[in-house]
Amino acid sequence: MISQTVIKEFESILGKDGVFLDETDRHTYSYDAAVLEPVLPSVVLRPERSEQLGKLVRLCNENAIPLTVRGAGTNLSGGTIPTKGGAVILTNALKKILEINSEDLYAVVQPGVVTAKFAAAVEAKGLFYPPDPGSQAVSTLGGNVAENAGGLRGLKYGVTRDYVMGLEFFDVNGEIVKTGARTVKCVTGYNLAALMVGSEGTLGVFDKIILKLIPMPAGRKAMMAIFNDMARASETVAAIIANRIVPATLEFMDNFTIRAVEDYSHVGLPVDAAALLLIEVDGHPAQVEEDAAKVESLCKEMGAENIRVARNAEERDKVWEARRTALSALAKLKPTVVLEDATVPRSKIPEMIQALEEISCRFDLTIGTFGHAGDGNLHPTILTDKRNKEEWHRVEAAIDAIFDKALSMGGTLSGEHGIGMAKSRFLEKETSRGTILFSRRIKAALDPKGILNPGKIIGE
Amino acid sequence: MISQTVIKEFESILGKDGVFLDETDRHTYSYDAAVLEPVLPSVVLRPERSEQLGKLVRLCNENAIPLTVRGAGTNLSGGTIPTKGGAVILTNALKKILEINSEDLYAVVQPGVVTAKFAAAVEAKGLFYPPDPGSQAVSTLGGNVAENAGGLRGLKYGVTRDYVMGLEFFDVNGEIVKTGARTVKCVTGYNLAALMVGSEGTLGVFDKIILKLIPMPAGRKAMMAIFNDMARASETVAAIIANRIVPATLEFMDNFTIRAVEDYSHVGLPVDAAALLLIEVDGHPAQVEEDAAKVESLCKEMGAENIRVARNAEERDKVWEARRTALSALAKLKPTVVLEDATVPRSKIPEMIQALEEISCRFDLTIGTFGHAGDGNLHPTILTDKRNKEEWHRVEAAIDAIFDKALSMGGTLSGEHGIGMAKSRFLEKETSRGTILFSRRIKAALDPKGILNPGKIIGE
Repeated sequence: MISQTVIKEFESILGKDGVFLDETDRHTYSYDAAVLEPVLPSVVLRPERSEQLGKLVRLCNENAIPLTVRGAGTNLSGGTIPTKGGAVILTNALKKILEINSEDLYAVVQPGVVTAKFAAAVEAKGLFYPPDPGSQAVSTLGGNVAENAGGLRGLKYGVTRDYVMGLEFFDVNGEIVKTGARTVKCVTGYNLAALMVGSEGTLGVFDKIILKLIPMPAGRKAMMAIFNDMARASETVAAIIANRIVPATLEFMDNFTIRAVEDYSHVGLPVDAAALLLIEVDGHPAQVEEDAAKVESLCKEMGAENIRVARNAEERDKVWEARRTALSALAKLKPTVVLEDATVPRSKIPEMIQALEEISCRFDLTIGTFGHAGDGNLHPTILTDKRNKEEWHRVEAAIDAIFDKALSMGGTLSGEHGIGMAKSRFLEKETSRGTILFSRRIKAALDPKGILNPGKIIGE
Repeated sequence: MISQTVIKEFESILGKDGVFLDETDRHTYSYDAAVLEPVLPSVVLRPERSEQLGKLVRLCNENAIPLTVRGAGTNLSGGTIPTKGGAVILTNALKKILEINSEDLYAVVQPGVVTAKFAAAVEAKGLFYPPDPGSQAVSTLGGNVAENAGGLRGLKYGVTRDYVMGLEFFDVNGEIVKTGARTVKCVTGYNLAALMVGSEGTLGVFDKIILKLIPMPAGRKAMMAIFNDMARASETVAAIIANRIVPATLEFMDNFTIRAVEDYSHVGLPVDAAALLLIEVDGHPAQVEEDAAKVESLCKEMGAENIRVARNAEERDKVWEARRTALSALAKLKPTVVLEDATVPRSKIPEMIQALEEISCRFDLTIGTFGHAGDGNLHPTILTDKRNKEEWHRVEAAIDAIFDKALSMGGTLSGEHGIGMAKSRFLEKETSRGTILFSRRIKAALDPKGILNPGKIIGE
């Protein structure tokens, strides 16, 4: 519990309106999008200015109060569950886009800016911020940076990490740390900004984020390739990459997902297809035409039943919107949805998709598979009911089997969802004992009392 | 000094052939390409296998022997000077390219692989490794990663950091730490690989490096724009960027540098030009033609005297080779050459170039300016003689003035050469006290005895 004296100090920093103690408010921030037990925070804090944020961090540290910063809570690995209670700090009032610089191609934002709003503001200036996590309509840039969020465009454009040029953040003492720059090149000091990206709030609290922007590609073209055979679809992914075509997006959807999405969003997906590939190429118009033609003929060669090319922006956007509903569509079908995130080298996608089918049979589970096949990042989604203990046991065994398979192919546990609490026990399997110890030394040095989002990434 | 017992242990790990104690050998590794006092190491060690490297690190730590890892020593900031003596570990026998994977677009290398050899091996497979530091003909990939080396292609393709997908390194205890992956997306644990990039050997010792590769661009075109007025040339740089053209390379050379390079390499540079821009565009052939035409007409509009387009690969390569000799050419003219590295947002290049002229006049110094104008990373090069104390004093004042100017424009102290010893005293100026303390906490936690390349980046 937090003493009344400290609550008063929070109120003197934020005013009474910025400090929430009601049980209802605390419940709202006790969970996130991961399938994990909620934990009630003792207090929820809502700073509106930078200096308030710094003071809150200092005060929490002085009083050894655990502190979890929360953007939109769309996290899929439990990164925003306040495992040890304490304070949840909301960033939703720190939502200013401070600068969009079209000459030097960067922007400076506060952590609470919503990803899609930012992308739109940037686009209005003819520029492009590529990272597009599935939750972009509500997710915040601070959350994206803390989790190193990915998205559909990872294959060609990389992930959030590739767009963070610099950061200003509060260390656990509330002191400001500046790292990185507004320039493409910067080797001034340790690359602390890169360490902070994906550190899930365990090393510091973001104040300002400097993001790289790029010119908007001049052309783009989207198409849907329909397959009667799932293996053919997955082999087509590998064939596209092997032919040195780098689409902006290359998404896979199995029949189960297709049906769920179509039921949910009625965009006219072919519900009898074994699998779909959704492909978008972009760049110079000549490049777009050439790549689109190559992709189309590759799909045909590989045995696609049919290929539908979007005739205009509206048709194109409809398909992507449908794709973005996949998680929600699947989530409607069962009480518990486990969205996995294991990632393999791109050429191993056919093998991985086959392995997922086998795992689904072996453990007698419903697994819908979709995701960013082009960058090896699939989302096998297990539909279950956590209250059914016997089935849940099989779910856990299936997750283990998925991880083992991914690692055996040179892959990784998590492509974009983060380790959080959900996967910290698997971390050593992929890395080494040395990696865990090295990471813990950093954590202990930067947060001696262990107040910054305790329990995440490296366990306790 | 290192005890005979420890020397015997080094010999038992490496054999006598891998342990160098002669004064001549030790002299060879007492300095690098920075203008700083040499320091003699006590011993020079040359491991040939990974496990030897790990054992050496462990032994140095157990005996509190300072340890500086050295690639080719082309470092310009004193990063490879063994400030506290101790051991220099050479990586030049750890030079295997372990894998080039054309399907999944990555490579795995040992730290001692020479940059240009690697780039050529990759190109032979139709792939592209863009980072091209000036010293690539001899520099090693381990050195490039330790310094986060840049190069001519930073504007479009980024720097070494952007190509490091993963690392395996020895921590100070000689334990192996694995971080990153062979996949585009990976958020498994802290991004330790990114922290290690540019850490100048102060946090661990690289064993294996996983590098990202990209498809080779299908077309390229190079041209030289000749200006009678330096301001016009620098404004053209800003105009090209403002027109959303992103050349692969956009280099600037002032008259002083042009003359020095022409004297040195006789490639037919226009020695009466006030300034040159060397520009290469690449990508899809249609994009290349369009961009080249736009750049040409922009250069004309901005007042270029003449524009020479390279008619073939040979003509193109000749110009780039000449550009790469700039440092050597300038170095011939005076006993001491100080190559600076301050970097500014790209739109500020005209202002920076003007400021350099003023600084050159104010301190009565010869400054040749060339460099990667397109990414804001200029290399003002001061020609002097360090033995002339009065002049050296003015040189130091001029460097201060250059840094102050760059910082006042939102720039950074070092774009690509690193902080090393040369700039550690300036670090706080750009960042904050909090940044230094945060960095020192990391260093102290990961290297409690301070044996890993002591004195670099964050001072002592």
